[in-house]
Formats: sequence, C-alpha cells, structure tokens
Amino acid sequence: MPQFADRVAKAQRSFIREILKVTADPSVISFAGGLPNPASFPVPEIAAAAAKVLHESGPSALQYSTTEGYLPLRQWIADRYKRRMDMDVSPDEILITTGSQQALDLVGKVIVNAGDTVVMEKPGYLGAIQAFTIFRPSWRSVPLENDGPDLETLDKALDGSKLFYAVTSFQNPSGLSYSEEKRAAVAELLHRHDTFFLEDDPYGELRFKGQTLPPVYKQRPEHSMLLGTFSKVAAPGFRLGWIVAKGEIMDRLVIAKQAADLHTGSLDQMVVHRFLADNDFEAHVARIRELYGNQCRVMQDAIAKHFPKNVHVTEPEGGMFLWVTLPEGASATELLRRSVERKVAFVPGAAFFVDGTGENTLRLNYSNADAKTIDEGIKRLAACMEACQGA
Amino acid sequence: MPQFADRVAKAQRSFIREILKVTADPSVISFAGGLPNPASFPVPEIAAAAAKVLHESGPSALQYSTTEGYLPLRQWIADRYKRRMDMDVSPDEILITTGSQQALDLVGKVIVNAGDTVVMEKPGYLGAIQAFTIFRPSWRSVPLENDGPDLETLDKALDGSKLFYAVTSFQNPSGLSYSEEKRAAVAELLHRHDTFFLEDDPYGELRFKGQTLPPVYKQRPEHSMLLGTFSKVAAPGFRLGWIVAKGEIMDRLVIAKQAADLHTGSLDQMVVHRFLADNDFEAHVARIRELYGNQCRVMQDAIAKHFPKNVHVTEPEGGMFLWVTLPEGASATELLRRSVERKVAFVPGAAFFVDGTGENTLRLNYSNADAKTIDEGIKRLAACMEACQGA
Repeated sequence: MPQFADRVAKAQRSFIREILKVTADPSVISFAGGLPNPASFPVPEIAAAAAKVLHESGPSALQYSTTEGYLPLRQWIADRYKRRMDMDVSPDEILITTGSQQALDLVGKVIVNAGDTVVMEKPGYLGAIQAFTIFRPSWRSVPLENDGPDLETLDKALDGSKLFYAVTSFQNPSGLSYSEEKRAAVAELLHRHDTFFLEDDPYGELRFKGQTLPPVYKQRPEHSMLLGTFSKVAAPGFRLGWIVAKGEIMDRLVIAKQAADLHTGSLDQMVVHRFLADNDFEAHVARIRELYGNQCRVMQDAIAKHFPKNVHVTEPEGGMFLWVTLPEGASATELLRRSVERKVAFVPGAAFFVDGTGENTLRLNYSNADAKTIDEGIKRLAACMEACQGA
Repeated sequence: MPQFADRVAKAQRSFIREILKVTADPSVISFAGGLPNPASFPVPEIAAAAAKVLHESGPSALQYSTTEGYLPLRQWIADRYKRRMDMDVSPDEILITTGSQQALDLVGKVIVNAGDTVVMEKPGYLGAIQAFTIFRPSWRSVPLENDGPDLETLDKALDGSKLFYAVTSFQNPSGLSYSEEKRAAVAELLHRHDTFFLEDDPYGELRFKGQTLPPVYKQRPEHSMLLGTFSKVAAPGFRLGWIVAKGEIMDRLVIAKQAADLHTGSLDQMVVHRFLADNDFEAHVARIRELYGNQCRVMQDAIAKHFPKNVHVTEPEGGMFLWVTLPEGASATELLRRSVERKVAFVPGAAFFVDGTGENTLRLNYSNADAKTIDEGIKRLAACMEACQGA
C-alpha cells in the first residue's frame, strides 16, 4: 500500500466516537455533546425564509456564488458588530465559512507551517486542536484562571510563537470568560509580540449574566482574526460561520477557502439572511439566553446539592458548558466507565489538553437537556463520584 | 508582521478574478465559467422538498449531524452506482463532502506530503491544481489524447508517484473521455504501480452521445477514490459532493473531514435526498443531457462555420466544455485581450497546465448560454482569431 501523508493519524477520532456510540442510546442522559437545544431552533421561521428565497430568487439561490459569501449576510454581520459592540467592521473584512470549524482549518492552512508554535488555552477547544494538528504545530498552553489566562505564562508562551488561539467568552470546554481587565492586558501583550491572534467567539451572544464585553480583536485588529457562527443563535445544521480579518490575511484566507470548497452553500446563506431580516433576532436570542441560563442554574443547583465537596466546578456567565475538576489523582476516564453503566455520559477533560494533563477534569453540557433530566443525571453522576472516591 | 505559512501564495487567484470581473458585465457573452444552466435547476421541486423536510423533521434537519453524512442520501448514491454501472458500493464507503472541491482538499491532506509526486492530466482540472498546490507537491503531467491519456507517458509518470488524478468522462477543461480500452489499460497500469488513484466524475451523468462507461475505480478500487457531485444534476448552490473509498483511506478521510468542517449541511443533505426520492431523477437528468447536447451542437456548428481552419476543437460526447487549440505560437491570453473588447470571454488554457505550457489553448463552456448567444459569441470570437492571425 502506498504511504499516507503525515498529517492525519489513523486512530485520532476513536475516543470521541466511542462516547457518541454510548450517547446514541436514548436511555442515556448525555452531558457529553456540545449541541444547542433543538427547542430553540426557529423551524417555522426558517421554513418561511426558505420558501420566500426559493420563490423570489430560486435559480440564483441554487447556483455557484462568490467565495467571500453572500453580501447582504456579510452586511448584516457587520451591522451587528456595530450595534452590539460599537465595532467598525466592513463587509469586505468578513469571509463566510462552512461553520467556524472551517475557519479553523483555513487559518491553520494560511498560518501554521509544520513545527510552528501554536499557543492554546489550557484546557483548550478540542475542534481547534483537531484542526491545527493537521498542520503539525508545536504546542504551548496557558492555564485559564477564573477571569482569563495567566498573564505571566501567556507572555512567555507568546515569545517566538506563530499563533495564539483563544475563546474569550464562555469558553469551550471551561465555561470561563476573559474579564474586561484581562482583555485589555491580553491585547497589550499581543501588541508586544509579533504573533497572529485568533479569537473564537461562538458563544458571545449567549450571555445570561453580566455585561457584554467587546472581543480582544477590537483592541488589536492587526495580525488578528475573529470568528463567529450562526450555529448557536440560528441553527448548526446550516454550517454557517465567518472570519473577520483585514488586508493580506483576508486575501490569503479567501484563496484557501476557494481551494477548500469554492464557497459556502448559496441557499443556506440566503435562507439565514432572510430569517435574520424578517424576524426579531434580538427577541430570538433573548429566549435562548433565558433557556440556557435556566438550565445552567438547574445544573448548578443539582451539583451544589449532590456533588462531593472536594469537586470544583466553574461558574459560567453564559454559553453551554460547566467544567469540573475532580480531586488530584482522580480519573475522569474511570468515572466515565462507571457513569456509562448508570447511563450518564460526559466528555473526560484530557482531550482538551495538549500537554497530556487534565485526567482529573471533565466537561458537562447543560444546553441540551430539560431540567428534570439534568437533575437526575447530576444525581447519578454524583453517586458515581462517591463510588470512585470510596474505591 | 508575522510570517504566513508557505502553503498559500498571495497572488494565486488574481487571474481568474480578473476574468470574473469581466464576465460580471451582463453585456459580455461569457464562455468562461463552468456554470450549469440555471434553467435546469428544479426550483419548484426543491422548494417542495425543503417545505416537506422542515415540516416532517425540522429540528433534526437543523441540528449537528454525523461527519460521514446523511445515511439515506449515501444509500441513494450507492443504489445509483448499482443501477447505472452494476457497481457494488456500500453506504459505508461513501463520505458526503461540501462539494467535490472539498473532496480534493481532503484527499490532498490525507495523501500528499510536501514534495510528493502528483500526476495530472495535461491539460488538467484547475480546481484540483489549486487544491493540491496547498500541499506543495511535485507535478508530473500526462498528455490527453482523444480517447484518454498517452499510456507510455502515464506508465513512466506513475513510477514512484504518490497520486494520479484523472477526470475520466468529459474532462474539465478538454471535454475528452477515456474510451473503454483506455479505462482497462489505465486500470492495468495502476495495478502495476503502488500509487493512489483519484478519479473525479462530476460530468458522467451528462452524456449526450455514446454509451455509459463505468469508472476506472470499478476495476481498481484498492488504493483508489472516486468522486461524485450533485452540482451538475441537481444544483451547485447546495455544495454537495461525495467520495467513494474503502478501509483505511475512508477512515482517514473522515478524520480529515471532521477537522475541516465537522459535517456537510444537514438541511442541504435532507432536501436533496427528498428531491431525489420524490421526483423522476432519470427524466430530470435526461432533460439536462438534451439541453447541453443541443447547446454543444450549436457551438460546434458555429465553430465549423466561423473559426479559421487551422484551429483545432475537441468533440465531446457529454459534459460542459469544448477545448480549442490555436496554431503553434498563438497566444490565448492575447486573444482574450482582444475578445474582451468585443465582449466575449473564455478561459485561456495555460492555467490548466502544471508545466508552464498551453499558451495556445483555451476552454469554451457551452452549458450556460442559449443558442442565439452561443452563435453570436462564436462569431465574435472567430473574428478576433482572424485578427490575431492577421496581426
């Protein structure tokens, strides 16, 4: 057999697949996925938008279109940055991508040579680790504190690095956010280092506590890229995300995008734009915020009641995840083995660490289960923790 | 400014963009694009399919789904291979991609290390050249004859190569097809060389003359991949293609796909499947074949009447393109400069050659213009040729 390229190893996806197999059983309570709640999907509004687009501009909605993306959609995104965060972004600085996962792939392609240093948060987003791994970087990672990264470690890590990747609001997997002070400090550090910065913001709209904070990108747009997505505020099945970037960075991303899939689906872009234009988006997002805020509170209450006291859990102000740290020496993989027997699943944290640590951590998703199920699942998980600690 | 990766050069897309700018002017007759005729798009049928899918399974059509793709769609594709070409393909051997351009990117990622030899047809498909260029191969190319590649050159080129990429039916850009004999001979050569084989078949359904021929893949599935797409038989705006492959090749492609965009749009896959299931696909494709067959004939007739006799043109049995070879020493770039003044555009052939030759060639698309426009465009182009030859 001829030799494969070095980029893609054979066994990489097996662990996640095993978890997915378990959660396919409907009797299993799953806190494992990162799925938005389908109850939040605007199905009738999307159906109306699709009918309207196909009626009004059928052939052009089904034809090839430009690599950069559908201009009215890019304009909508630019307008929203202005409205929400007083950011001046031109539609020319927005490239529509096939979900923000594709944005990670494009940025990796355009920026990361084999051996280049990529700085990740610790823990860091698994999808980004998978996307960048293809381009064979060296990793450094910077511990997240409750209000953002440890600045001293970040300063050292940025030195001589090629790219810093950060999810600054309601991070996946930790649920943590950068405070206003940390955002300013990170921008300041980036100004002192000759490093590309990639800020991923899939959850920013899902804040159910505290004040909206503008992205770090606003303070350091040069050599930086900002990602967004409609997956959490409209629906993920469209695979619609975007990259904000300027000048030569954007030029190269567009070339890479053209080689990757020519352009993102024309009909999807026009339908989502129609949905946004014809409906009260603010009210729609407010409903999702309320839903997830409630579900987060239910999970936090159940945790306070049932988890052993030596287990630490983060307190997110938005997003879809809680992050659990078991006592030193405990194993979340072992806990999963037991909890699956009791029909509860989660993602063990080690997959989110590029330095081989994190065995005593795990991620819980609260967006995709109702209150009763969340309460029951946490109770079962707590019992497994007690059993593990007793063993 | 920090350094970009070596993969994506800055100026790569400029030439094609210049052509696109010209053809955006509606007074220009464009034979430049590779666009299906929008008159062939089944708009009302797609609208009905979208309404039905959203009504019957709205939330799941909008949710994340599996990387491999929507199973009923993969089953439909497998069934069609059986029906059309008596090929046994299991749905497990089909990966849905975001257009077949993405398939090219995934195959490049999984197979091509920097410096590996990729064998292309001469001329070769530009989208594949762009996709593979990202992975920095060494190129070899094999001239196409009227019935397929020059076998002696192919035999030498395959020696020590990593990947052979071929469009075996109604090739883009040449319109040429591999004969039954050449298909067998190519399979035989591949059996003797330890090389991956990637067969791209976007146009196979669009045969308006002669007999359907099974892909080379059928005779040499091991170490091979076969691509297909709905862009030419349903609509390109969906960005729906697929890869047929087995075993470890498929495993690695799925890992690469997950890192590239998680999965292809759920709604798009379900809508196209609904369209295929609820309509007479055979009759739909027959109408496209008849349309393109007529348009091809109109272009051939106009060429026979107007082009100088020392200009050679291919005679396709299907697909969307004619390939023109000007006399030795003539320049298609120079011809384009003149023809744009007379408001006709085409793609100069040099972009389809990886060895720097092809300056006296050009590609004409006949799928996306009506008979009267085709006739007028060819007349104008012929006048430019005469002027060039006289100069």
